[in-house]
Amino acid sequence: MQITHDELQQLDDRYRANLINSLSGFKSANLIGTVDKQGRTNLAIVSSVFHLGANPPLLGMISRPHSVARHTLDNILAIGEYTINHVNAAIWTQAHQTSARFPREISEFDAVGLSAQWHDGVKAPFVAESRLKYALKLRSHQTIDLNGVVLLIGEVTQLHVEQGAVTDSGYIDIAQLGSVAVSGLDSYHTAQNLGRLSYAKPDKVPQRLD
Amino acid sequence: MQITHDELQQLDDRYRANLINSLSGFKSANLIGTVDKQGRTNLAIVSSVFHLGANPPLLGMISRPHSVARHTLDNILAIGEYTINHVNAAIWTQAHQTSARFPREISEFDAVGLSAQWHDGVKAPFVAESRLKYALKLRSHQTIDLNGVVLLIGEVTQLHVEQGAVTDSGYIDIAQLGSVAVSGLDSYHTAQNLGRLSYAKPDKVPQRLD
Repeated sequence: MQITHDELQQLDDRYRANLINSLSGFKSANLIGTVDKQGRTNLAIVSSVFHLGANPPLLGMISRPHSVARHTLDNILAIGEYTINHVNAAIWTQAHQTSARFPREISEFDAVGLSAQWHDGVKAPFVAESRLKYALKLRSHQTIDLNGVVLLIGEVTQLHVEQGAVTDSGYIDIAQLGSVAVSGLDSYHTAQNLGRLSYAKPDKVPQRLD
Repeated sequence: MQITHDELQQLDDRYRANLINSLSGFKSANLIGTVDKQGRTNLAIVSSVFHLGANPPLLGMISRPHSVARHTLDNILAIGEYTINHVNAAIWTQAHQTSARFPREISEFDAVGLSAQWHDGVKAPFVAESRLKYALKLRSHQTIDLNGVVLLIGEVTQLHVEQGAVTDSGYIDIAQLGSVAVSGLDSYHTAQNLGRLSYAKPDKVPQRLD
């Protein structure tokens, strides 16, 4: 079926949100750990973390507009640090529940039953139950004029990962860690390996690395 | 294991690239279809497409810096249109091979054995073998100062999807379409459904929608 630009504009808002959120493909599922100046912790699931560069190690994240985004964005801008914690298949329902609009004085850690974990040198809380997590320092933020969302860019300052998941090449086997993927607004998935392929060259068929 | 910022900086470049590329979690796998002013088609796999907003329907994409990026970025900037085509499990090895550095006069469609498909109103080629694909008009582009990569933002102008995959709510079952996910630089995955969860509210446990 074909859907034109005009037809997209005429769709019911919720239908369009489901449809358009399905277009990018599988998304990462991460919990963002933050704290405010009063020391109150916050935890929020996001599917908008993306790789931006390896050297320096930068990750981007899209936040909803200032007008609707709340504690996570406020905390990151106030403190300048945050953690990103992979959601895995053991905690996916608790992770989803962090998206409920809890009042500021309630920590999502307590509300959903996940444990805050603190590491020296990092002001923001990690998620103890996450098996791959890292801290970032905010490096830049900007509002995207086209729709008011906010692009946050952070640099990795500290990484915690289960040692057995890191391969000799540096690749982390996130499927083995149970990391989950998101599609659309609310669908969660585990991953099965198809395979790894060698660096592509014009005159060669890609080789399986696994 | 813990890895500090200083240790990250001392890693071998390739090891660090593998490691840092694993951090964001599962990534989308898409083929970008473009054409230049001479009508020569180009196809490139990217794992950097992300959802930016549903109304207007916007998607972001990260391109390598101008100094190393080549035909895809040039073509998008020259023509102002491009297509995004989900990679599925039937074409993942061909899709990977588009990342080889073919000369400009060779179309990756021909080189890897995928078929260009044209639709009225869109200047760029779609991938016939892709089961979920859409055209975009470039709405903005900017260089990220921190590392020189380029953020491209496009608005969806035309969508093609297999009808049976679109649910009543607008959600597209991309696992059913065989869409694949990427982790790290070169690892491909299919997805298994964990489930869909209801919109989260503070006083309710999330309900399964499926």
